[in-house]
Amino acid sequence: MEGISPPSSSNPIVVKKIQESRRKPLFIKELIKSILEGNHTALSRGITLVESTATKHQQQAKELIQGCLPHANNSIRIGITGVPGVGKSTFIESFGTLLTQKGKKVAVLAVDPSSTLSKGSILGDKTRMEELVKNPNAFIRPSASGESLGGVARKTREAIILCEAAGFDIIIIETVGVGQSETTVHSMTDFFLLLKLAGAGDELQGIKRGIMEMADAIVINKADGDNVKAAKLAKTEFNRALHLYPEKESGWTPKTLTCSSINNEGIEDVWNLIEEYSTTVKKNNYFQEKRNEQNKFWLMQTIESALKANFYHQAKVKKELEKQLQLLQAHKTTPFEAAEVLLKITS
Amino acid sequence: MEGISPPSSSNPIVVKKIQESRRKPLFIKELIKSILEGNHTALSRGITLVESTATKHQQQAKELIQGCLPHANNSIRIGITGVPGVGKSTFIESFGTLLTQKGKKVAVLAVDPSSTLSKGSILGDKTRMEELVKNPNAFIRPSASGESLGGVARKTREAIILCEAAGFDIIIIETVGVGQSETTVHSMTDFFLLLKLAGAGDELQGIKRGIMEMADAIVINKADGDNVKAAKLAKTEFNRALHLYPEKESGWTPKTLTCSSINNEGIEDVWNLIEEYSTTVKKNNYFQEKRNEQNKFWLMQTIESALKANFYHQAKVKKELEKQLQLLQAHKTTPFEAAEVLLKITS
Repeated sequence: MEGISPPSSSNPIVVKKIQESRRKPLFIKELIKSILEGNHTALSRGITLVESTATKHQQQAKELIQGCLPHANNSIRIGITGVPGVGKSTFIESFGTLLTQKGKKVAVLAVDPSSTLSKGSILGDKTRMEELVKNPNAFIRPSASGESLGGVARKTREAIILCEAAGFDIIIIETVGVGQSETTVHSMTDFFLLLKLAGAGDELQGIKRGIMEMADAIVINKADGDNVKAAKLAKTEFNRALHLYPEKESGWTPKTLTCSSINNEGIEDVWNLIEEYSTTVKKNNYFQEKRNEQNKFWLMQTIESALKANFYHQAKVKKELEKQLQLLQAHKTTPFEAAEVLLKITS
Repeated sequence: MEGISPPSSSNPIVVKKIQESRRKPLFIKELIKSILEGNHTALSRGITLVESTATKHQQQAKELIQGCLPHANNSIRIGITGVPGVGKSTFIESFGTLLTQKGKKVAVLAVDPSSTLSKGSILGDKTRMEELVKNPNAFIRPSASGESLGGVARKTREAIILCEAAGFDIIIIETVGVGQSETTVHSMTDFFLLLKLAGAGDELQGIKRGIMEMADAIVINKADGDNVKAAKLAKTEFNRALHLYPEKESGWTPKTLTCSSINNEGIEDVWNLIEEYSTTVKKNNYFQEKRNEQNKFWLMQTIESALKANFYHQAKVKKELEKQLQLLQAHKTTPFEAAEVLLKITS
């Protein structure tokens, strides 16, 4: 087959670029442009795209992320957790409004592994943040749903990138204390805030499961009316409890504050605390180190999930696993011997 | 090639058996026989064989385990942990001696992931259990050393099988609180005992890292002389702390006791507690369920370690991982994109 060979003067890099731009649909280029301009509708569309499980959207989502990445990473990512009823929405409404008054752009995302069951127990009802939802400098996105926490985490991490590219400098990731969701949120945020209530045995809830150990600040909400005294007492108690934990790698000593979200009291103190934290960990380089560690964690985590999934999803493995578990139960093999048999199937 | 075909009357099962017995060296058959007879020297040799990393020993070790397995699983496996200085050796000496007086056969093994560094910080010096080491109904084995906790765990689990086959009905697994070793010991024992001291800020040590959450009993050692009062106080304190944790799957409420190992006081109470536990969990079937869960855990754990090792040990993966980590740090890729690139190498 004879053809016209390219003129020797044509630059192969330029040729490649033109070819690539032809492959990339105009739609994604436009979407990236609009997101970078801070267009909320484009941002929403972008997040919907990265959340899509349709195969045809996956290549587009990749290009979108790739286009936004160079403009991301310039925010403070704040994780907020607390049991249902602690007033997360009211707090975020009050806190977010304050930040926009200070000239910040605030995005609120949610990680809710239970949403497939409860159909959006958090942020599902946008009206719970009446003020913030109308604020042009705020962006609220209900939780990504998904079958696995890993899947939800990926979508949330990618949504963070898009929000950052759209110019949001404060990213709030909200979660409800279900299963491992706090750990997940902790592993994608710079600052971890635990919302608490005074009394009602709530003091005890934080002690288990290492949530208190993860907190950079504990904020006792609803410190208003008859509750003020109990909140102050709880503050002392939590402060004492926090001192039981070993010093944090960040060099930061977690603090306890009280606030009233409905009265807008103590909210500014929370922000001051986060700024103090931010200054500290940017100075001692922990801020960047932690983000690098988080990236590495998610890289490894994704690889290891895939390795496991690829292994266990094989029909032969499934069948043999069942057999080996029966042998184990009958004390006819050891876990190590059984593992060897299973591993031999695929090697 | 023509040969003599076997007479039609020869039983293929018998033929197979004879062939197998010819393949299995006489040495292993003799070793199994001696272990089942309760010979301590044979048991020691057997454990040395399963601990060996030499390839030629691995097939022999397998046959040994296979021969012992039908005679194993008839013990109570007790995990004992506590910080250095808490008096683990003295406690085990006193506790083990009591058990032998009750007609039990006691084996003491150790899990010590740090032993490669510290050259056997626990049980390395057998003379620390002067009485027990001379006792014909006791068997003490210093810790297996190994590069990984997984490796040490496997050797310990296999040593348990051999000890059980040798007729030991109480297996004590000792560990020092280093890294993840308590979790490892917890995942291979039926009852988990945490040794503590009164005072010296020791009350706080247990609260972090979830060790207290794993304990079925907390025993405050050295409750003697001037220490009695402080020990009683600590008992009350720990009991209160234990109540903060959610109810155990076993249906068992963890208890706190005091004892003096050097004065042999309170040691019998510890045994009574373990018997009470044993009765409870055998009745509600948790005992067997937990062992099944542990077997499954070690099966999965072994498979997943192997999958990871096989993946990350590839030269191509190593090289690309380094590259992707650099791209990550420069914000030129995402953890998920990087993982995809890496996973494609081997698919």
